[in-house]
Amino acid sequence: MTKYVKGGERFSLTDPTLVPNSAGYLWNKHMMIHMNCQGYAVAQYMNPEPKKYAHTPSMAATSFMQPEQPYFANHPGRFFYLRDDQSGEIFSAPFAPIKAPLDSFEFLPGLSDIKWKVQHNDICVELCLTLSEEFAAELWQVKVTSNSKAIRNISLIPYFPVGYMSWMNMGAHYDDQLNAIVCTSITPYQKLEDYAKNKHLKDITFLASDVKPNYVETSGLRFEGQGGLHNPDALSSLANLSNQPCHYEMPACAMQFQLELEAHESREFNFVFGPALDKTEIENLKNHTLGNSKQEQTEKYAQYIQSGKGVINISSPDEAFDHFVNHWLPRQVFYHGDTNRLTTDPQTRNYLQDGMGMAYVNSETTKTVILTSLAQQKSDGEMPDGILLTPEAQLKYINQIPHTDHSVWLTLILDAYLNETNDWAILEEPVAWIDSDEKHSVLEHMNRAMDHMCQARDYRGMPYIAQGDWCDPMNMVGHKGKGVSGWLTQALSFALQTWVRISHQDNTSSKIQEYQSTIEQLSIIADEHLWQGDWYARGITDDGVTFGVPDDKEGRIFLNTQSWAFLANMPNELQKSQMLKAIEEQLDTPYGVMLCAPAFTAMREDVGRVTQKWPGSGENGSVYNHAAAFYAASLYNINQPDRAFNVLRKMIADPQCPTFKQRGQLPVYVPNYYRGAYYQYPSAAGRSSNLFNTGTGAWFYRAVIEEMLGLKGCKEGLTVTPKIPQSWEHLSVTRTFRQATFTVNYERVKNESETSLTVNGERLKTHVISNFQAGQHYTVNVKFV
Amino acid sequence: MTKYVKGGERFSLTDPTLVPNSAGYLWNKHMMIHMNCQGYAVAQYMNPEPKKYAHTPSMAATSFMQPEQPYFANHPGRFFYLRDDQSGEIFSAPFAPIKAPLDSFEFLPGLSDIKWKVQHNDICVELCLTLSEEFAAELWQVKVTSNSKAIRNISLIPYFPVGYMSWMNMGAHYDDQLNAIVCTSITPYQKLEDYAKNKHLKDITFLASDVKPNYVETSGLRFEGQGGLHNPDALSSLANLSNQPCHYEMPACAMQFQLELEAHESREFNFVFGPALDKTEIENLKNHTLGNSKQEQTEKYAQYIQSGKGVINISSPDEAFDHFVNHWLPRQVFYHGDTNRLTTDPQTRNYLQDGMGMAYVNSETTKTVILTSLAQQKSDGEMPDGILLTPEAQLKYINQIPHTDHSVWLTLILDAYLNETNDWAILEEPVAWIDSDEKHSVLEHMNRAMDHMCQARDYRGMPYIAQGDWCDPMNMVGHKGKGVSGWLTQALSFALQTWVRISHQDNTSSKIQEYQSTIEQLSIIADEHLWQGDWYARGITDDGVTFGVPDDKEGRIFLNTQSWAFLANMPNELQKSQMLKAIEEQLDTPYGVMLCAPAFTAMREDVGRVTQKWPGSGENGSVYNHAAAFYAASLYNINQPDRAFNVLRKMIADPQCPTFKQRGQLPVYVPNYYRGAYYQYPSAAGRSSNLFNTGTGAWFYRAVIEEMLGLKGCKEGLTVTPKIPQSWEHLSVTRTFRQATFTVNYERVKNESETSLTVNGERLKTHVISNFQAGQHYTVNVKFV
Repeated sequence: MTKYVKGGERFSLTDPTLVPNSAGYLWNKHMMIHMNCQGYAVAQYMNPEPKKYAHTPSMAATSFMQPEQPYFANHPGRFFYLRDDQSGEIFSAPFAPIKAPLDSFEFLPGLSDIKWKVQHNDICVELCLTLSEEFAAELWQVKVTSNSKAIRNISLIPYFPVGYMSWMNMGAHYDDQLNAIVCTSITPYQKLEDYAKNKHLKDITFLASDVKPNYVETSGLRFEGQGGLHNPDALSSLANLSNQPCHYEMPACAMQFQLELEAHESREFNFVFGPALDKTEIENLKNHTLGNSKQEQTEKYAQYIQSGKGVINISSPDEAFDHFVNHWLPRQVFYHGDTNRLTTDPQTRNYLQDGMGMAYVNSETTKTVILTSLAQQKSDGEMPDGILLTPEAQLKYINQIPHTDHSVWLTLILDAYLNETNDWAILEEPVAWIDSDEKHSVLEHMNRAMDHMCQARDYRGMPYIAQGDWCDPMNMVGHKGKGVSGWLTQALSFALQTWVRISHQDNTSSKIQEYQSTIEQLSIIADEHLWQGDWYARGITDDGVTFGVPDDKEGRIFLNTQSWAFLANMPNELQKSQMLKAIEEQLDTPYGVMLCAPAFTAMREDVGRVTQKWPGSGENGSVYNHAAAFYAASLYNINQPDRAFNVLRKMIADPQCPTFKQRGQLPVYVPNYYRGAYYQYPSAAGRSSNLFNTGTGAWFYRAVIEEMLGLKGCKEGLTVTPKIPQSWEHLSVTRTFRQATFTVNYERVKNESETSLTVNGERLKTHVISNFQAGQHYTVNVKFV
Repeated sequence: MTKYVKGGERFSLTDPTLVPNSAGYLWNKHMMIHMNCQGYAVAQYMNPEPKKYAHTPSMAATSFMQPEQPYFANHPGRFFYLRDDQSGEIFSAPFAPIKAPLDSFEFLPGLSDIKWKVQHNDICVELCLTLSEEFAAELWQVKVTSNSKAIRNISLIPYFPVGYMSWMNMGAHYDDQLNAIVCTSITPYQKLEDYAKNKHLKDITFLASDVKPNYVETSGLRFEGQGGLHNPDALSSLANLSNQPCHYEMPACAMQFQLELEAHESREFNFVFGPALDKTEIENLKNHTLGNSKQEQTEKYAQYIQSGKGVINISSPDEAFDHFVNHWLPRQVFYHGDTNRLTTDPQTRNYLQDGMGMAYVNSETTKTVILTSLAQQKSDGEMPDGILLTPEAQLKYINQIPHTDHSVWLTLILDAYLNETNDWAILEEPVAWIDSDEKHSVLEHMNRAMDHMCQARDYRGMPYIAQGDWCDPMNMVGHKGKGVSGWLTQALSFALQTWVRISHQDNTSSKIQEYQSTIEQLSIIADEHLWQGDWYARGITDDGVTFGVPDDKEGRIFLNTQSWAFLANMPNELQKSQMLKAIEEQLDTPYGVMLCAPAFTAMREDVGRVTQKWPGSGENGSVYNHAAAFYAASLYNINQPDRAFNVLRKMIADPQCPTFKQRGQLPVYVPNYYRGAYYQYPSAAGRSSNLFNTGTGAWFYRAVIEEMLGLKGCKEGLTVTPKIPQSWEHLSVTRTFRQATFTVNYERVKNESETSLTVNGERLKTHVISNFQAGQHYTVNVKFV
């Protein structure tokens, strides 16, 4: 059983085995924690690169965040054992590692905290995890209540495994003065020059408490013994924890609190768990997060999360949709935009889109993103593969592979920023180049970016793909310097159209003419070289093989070359209907629209790495939500609002949907993908990647605001051109826009002639609300067909 | 309870929780498996670099072999579940993951196989793991016997977890034709150029059987379910395995055999488990290792192991010592020398010493090692930090750090090789240089190596330490180019003395004079700059600080600068007794002699990385057996045979010793260290590193043969100069030497005058047996004091 708490922001999951991978996530600018309903956790913090403070029991590889990571017995977690010190009976809250059937279980992830309420054997355990805004530390509150009539002797044992910290040095001890278990380690190194760097890393993990424990354990191996975490030796036979330090063993933080509880008596404990450089830092963290300071920290953190609440609040006939769009979607957009996914070198494409989402949350950030990106552009117009956010940052992973599409996204973020803020002065802002201190206007930066993309084309006029565009792994199409991208042919057109719309007053007419002519040329090229059967091909390889075409056995049709054709206004009406039919027949599934189909099951050496990804996962034929969000946007563009809404609606793993269990997650975020390959591997299709890092949120949010609700900014003010799903008759929305507030009531009417737009009772003759004041509230009535 | 099987090579451990980390190990030239008594396993193979075919459930880091790796619930293992299909009762053999108390348990690691015999609920399970000589594959035999009178319905379920193979692609299916579970994956990559390399990797892991299973399971997560490996969902409620493939999940190999066993009926199953490139390779492996071929493979593998049996067989009053030296020690020496520790770039120091051990196993290998090493020497005489064994090999890990001592070890391997083979022609062998095709004799190579070391000295005449010598982690003593090594001052002297002894007939007398004068100079230098208090200091830092001296709070005394002073004949008699006293007071422990003391507990920035290792582990104050072996050799050199024997004896984790349980391993190998820091962290002291990669074996074996037994080769033949422990009155030894066999009977006499050496009844006047024939057997009687 699971439900969302009506009118609130919180979900409730009452069976920990129903969707066992369900997790909530919390973050601040320093850290992120993904907290599984059963008690398993994935957490990392910046120091200065992403680093973990709780580890698996083996040496883990350093990598980018991976999808579908399995939980297992010794996975890092935050576990609370409860032992009846008379009978010896033990259970663990929230559920793992013992996983005993409980009398009741409730998992309640919230916007700024994650709660559980677990009852068993007349003992109620309430857990609450929150963060602070400023520190990298977990703040835990644990309340134990006896519902017995008799006096109960209970041991509460929080057990936070710390795992394999380092082959060079690890250990743990209890510090009486700090009332903390301090796990020490030294980041291993062999090269002398690494020593100086590593010295500044927070190699300590600690657990501090506001209550003195009766006993502590510092060794994971000693705690488990031969029994294992489901039946730890340390808790069997009514034993107490050892109070011993551990030396070059996997550390763990365990404390034992012996409680004598009267009938209905409660006891509360507060813990702080996280990384630290030294004991002074632990002391400081304790002072700021335990005792009297805790309340303040918790409130500040809630305010921080609240600051990302976004610009709309919907009340529609679809409660689950409202709930997601009002609470969890802007929160996901905020997470991306405010933290840059906790990397120091975000992919340029991601950085720009995460920044774009912030236009609807905190547009100052969007401006910073635009200017920061352009300051790393080369003076020949080329954008780098990743944007470096710290002085020490370096391009890692996929950012070392040459991609050709980064400038496309510049136009899209700028468009959203201008829509929302009307800050046209940004076009005049002077910005230097990565290879020159001479500053030029944003307008000039953008022109050079467009020109560079226009030049990077072949004899046909098609853009080179190099070792990838979007998505990344088509790394063999054009690595010899000849292969071209169908998608980029369309994306370049879309980017140029957007840029022409933005810059037509500021650019010279000859420049605009030049772009217009390229746009027209690209459209002709697409029809000539890409259109085959009923859709557009994905590209043409170094050896001249057109792929993503009807004759292909695998990778026959790609979503992106259809949706971006719609966005670029390339197909005619006949083509549109052919494309929609093909998409619905080949790409649509109960879980969403797949990125390509059939997914590649074997390597195709002229196409690339996508074909080595597991069919249906990641970029190989999954329901890749980021692409699906673009498809939704493109459907609005060709005036298919019902189709568009369905695409968006399927992204929400709504407990009411029949596909909920298969997806295996609560709808607290849109994952980067649901498994696809629906016709090839139906049994696995629909599973969530359980990864909330994705460009999806920004586009989902933008599509809802600007397209579905039709509340898009323009130079003159706020346009109102809704594209509401057919089944909805009424809805109302609160929209914050340029510091004014609009309550918009939508009502469906039968005929075009009945449509109207009224502001504070006054009927407008256009679709644009232009005379409004910051700080004021307006009531808008929209009658639409 | 544990014992060794008298007269045989096999140990028996009857309690799986007594020393739970106890493991046997098997290898061939392609792979190595370290098989824990409870069923956990660490295995890797060369492809071409070390690679795993069974993984943990998380993304593991690629690293060199680590000590004291913990086992945990989801650690890779080879598990056999036995379920009573009437009662549903389940246990697992050998012990994990269920770890149910068994009626009886026996772990029987052998030289060429590892066996278990487990009985529970009237079911007997006999397991046998062996390898083949030529393939990278595990060969398992499982015999299930019913000891019930009634008919029993039993399911046997071998469960081999395969773990997190790859984030890019992993899955598994059952191949009916192969009768194998085939787990597929693709080694992840992002850089295009890695694709071509990865194509040739054996990305498949498979389990094939000679019996058709009734059901199979391919998914680890589905097998475990929410129950975990100790209580897997797949086996609860009398369920049968799912027969389903798994898609982008952690693969596992599980087969279910439903058996109906009459009273005392047995059933036998054979499995092969390992990596493969493709199904053709699986087919081929099956054909060679199952069915009729299995017996042949097993015998060939036993012969291969037998070929490394070494050159002595002792029968002394110390049965445990004999057992270790006759069986397990030469096997460990053979493992090192025959596989180069399964690396492609062995550290030069390791490669030469592992090759030295082979002088007593298969001296052709020793010759190859000498010539291979010298062919990678620079023409200026400098030796590289690692020796590259394949065309693709690259220097990794510690081999990227400049060390100064590699040429020392050249003299030691050459000395042992000449002792054993009398192959003086090797000195004339022409060898090229890494930077020149012009060939020069081994003599010239050796001279240049010595000259290069002699030149790399400071104004005092002391050798620079650069970023390390032996042991590695003193990386800050001399990184500025000034710091010098006390140990290398002695080691250079010892190397030169050895080289002078070897080359005095072939080198010019002026060359010999030059070396002699350096030897004398080094002795004076050591006394002047290193002798402080009662021992020799470890070195002098870049800033002129002498360390390893009485005033130091930590790292006050280092073993190596005492033992190598003994080897280099530097101290006078008074100094010797002072040094021995200091060693015994500060370094000796019940578990052996520590490398330094007190171990460093905090970083000392003028000394280096050793001080960041956990105190008592690895090179920071552990009982580092490699160094202890040199200490034993040095004690023989100063005629302290009882002290020497005690040092060697403590390396054997003998079940009869009171320290057996603390060490936590069976004596099937000498680990690279036992935990030290005995006076600082007594509770952890003595624990085995559980790592059998160490230079210890070769020196232990050499010290026993050439020093203790005194059966050392020379130009004239076999010298007989025993240094037998005081407590032994008699012993007899079979010694294979230059293709003759000597049965040597030792008898202690009271006075020097009674000593004698008799060969085939004829009394010799010297200590050298010189007239003997290859292929002949000689009876030697030695009367010694």
